[in-house]
Amino acid sequence: MIAAQYMGDKSFSIVEGVNSSPKADEVKLAVGYVGICGTDMHIYHGVMDGRVNPPQTIGHEMSGTIVEVGADVEGFTVGERVVVRPLDWCGECPTCKAGHTHICQNLKFMGIDSPGAFQSNWTVKARTLHKLPAGVNLKQGALIEPLSVACHDIRRSRLQAGEKAVVLGGGPIGQLVAAVAKSVGADVLVSEPNESRRAFAEKLGVESVNPLETDLEKFVDEWTGTKGADVVFEVSGVKPAIDAMTQIAGRRGRIVMVAIHSQKPEIDLFQFFWKELELLGARVYEAEDFDWAIDLIASGKVDVEPFISSVNPLTDIGSAFASMDNNPQGMKALVECNAE
Amino acid sequence: MIAAQYMGDKSFSIVEGVNSSPKADEVKLAVGYVGICGTDMHIYHGVMDGRVNPPQTIGHEMSGTIVEVGADVEGFTVGERVVVRPLDWCGECPTCKAGHTHICQNLKFMGIDSPGAFQSNWTVKARTLHKLPAGVNLKQGALIEPLSVACHDIRRSRLQAGEKAVVLGGGPIGQLVAAVAKSVGADVLVSEPNESRRAFAEKLGVESVNPLETDLEKFVDEWTGTKGADVVFEVSGVKPAIDAMTQIAGRRGRIVMVAIHSQKPEIDLFQFFWKELELLGARVYEAEDFDWAIDLIASGKVDVEPFISSVNPLTDIGSAFASMDNNPQGMKALVECNAE
Repeated sequence: MIAAQYMGDKSFSIVEGVNSSPKADEVKLAVGYVGICGTDMHIYHGVMDGRVNPPQTIGHEMSGTIVEVGADVEGFTVGERVVVRPLDWCGECPTCKAGHTHICQNLKFMGIDSPGAFQSNWTVKARTLHKLPAGVNLKQGALIEPLSVACHDIRRSRLQAGEKAVVLGGGPIGQLVAAVAKSVGADVLVSEPNESRRAFAEKLGVESVNPLETDLEKFVDEWTGTKGADVVFEVSGVKPAIDAMTQIAGRRGRIVMVAIHSQKPEIDLFQFFWKELELLGARVYEAEDFDWAIDLIASGKVDVEPFISSVNPLTDIGSAFASMDNNPQGMKALVECNAE
Repeated sequence: MIAAQYMGDKSFSIVEGVNSSPKADEVKLAVGYVGICGTDMHIYHGVMDGRVNPPQTIGHEMSGTIVEVGADVEGFTVGERVVVRPLDWCGECPTCKAGHTHICQNLKFMGIDSPGAFQSNWTVKARTLHKLPAGVNLKQGALIEPLSVACHDIRRSRLQAGEKAVVLGGGPIGQLVAAVAKSVGADVLVSEPNESRRAFAEKLGVESVNPLETDLEKFVDEWTGTKGADVVFEVSGVKPAIDAMTQIAGRRGRIVMVAIHSQKPEIDLFQFFWKELELLGARVYEAEDFDWAIDLIASGKVDVEPFISSVNPLTDIGSAFASMDNNPQGMKALVECNAE
């Protein structure tokens, strides 16, 4: 049993982990693959050290196999392949009682606020598990967490078949949002300055545009026959996209805020009035999003294989992170925590 | 037949109007009462001269009696008392075809973009009319248009009985929003610095708070038992309210943008992510809002009489406007266009 510990400042140590048994409501997993998330990259760069408190094992986009089941756990058996929905909610606050446990007022995010998956074994509460069907392998399984983010964004948007959706930003989450939008029958346009990311979108079968070369507002106006976009997903986190989102959304258009803007950008509120726009915040996912993401992969409606840029063993986690640093070509680096 | 013409720079002229007959799809009204709206005050101050193009007859919050019916009009007869939903939509654009005629891409607002109601007779398309039931008098009728704004805001918010709603700003529209929110069974708090407006809210039976003296975030936190407001209506148009709205809204809270912000304020988008907030733009009203507003008055669920601050004859329209200028005590000045 080994574990990777983030030590601060872009460095990891591989240490011998503690091989404990699960508590009554827990399950112990042999970790299969763990993906590197944008948040993991922020941690890697040291900007979240105050919250992560290194040395700490991080990682939350994972798949694994059950190796031990706690005394009170029902419905799971050793050998089953699963993914973890890495949310630890209190169950007591008004938000949990209203059924929105994913935005619990005391939410802990596993792999950030508590130890994560970059280790050979991870012990988690059984309530976080979703089973993998036979047709989904462990590599694909590691993509289910980010795909669930996209599923949640699409559900928040109420996107329907035949509607026109613009995704601002063609990074991994933007591309997954585009893929799920396409799977529901929407017409999808990805706005992304980087050429390789635009090429990735085109391979997924969605249109792309370079907003630095093309007047996006005019393009969307023509693309939608003057109606404007039904849904805009702001996934880029940059200021020009904040300006664009209110311009390209049509009347009664919905704008889903996927990117995390820690600054307070200036927003064209007049357009919200004039076009009766909606802005919908979206955070992580709910159980139904994981179920949907698993079904999208199992049914072949979304192919996540092209998203896998590299696979490195846990002992080489540093290389996996370094490969994703300032690499717009890379979509998803996986770390293999137990050899298959 | 006389008409008041706005001449620019806070001045009106009373002129002899043209007494024409209605076209086939039109109805000619003897105007009863016309209320002065915030937009009319903007026009009065000259800031909308480019759009209004004086000399022009303005006014759109009105009630009246049918005096002549066009050849093709069905369902209306001379003598019936009505109100006008002052929207002139094209019926051809994608937004109209999608059923959202109130935000038509070519919408003309009657009384701003075309002649309005400050005259003894007003000829309008029959499709704009709503009938007044026996229990609603013409003075009350002049309040139906602004009450319909409030009804539309409440419908946009999906406010439910038992939910907690905060109204930021206690002017006429804010107070009407509070009254409609109360009528659906919500707990309502009006945040308003002006003492007389707070007193007005208390008389309506809703709580009020002075945000300059009380920490609004803390107050709402206690008022809601840490849950935060279910719905926030931003009706003030001032910067501190923009900051407050994201602080006081609870998780999955809905913020309805009622005020028109022509500047682009800085908005705390992080809160939209963290709490999965919704921002909903709201503009004017739909036919169902007029129907609801009429029913609220007819049923006694909302009493609009306290909103009527003054009644002046059309020949004294200048005094009516002057009485509303920088007068936070005044809620609604009515102009009587034909003596009852």
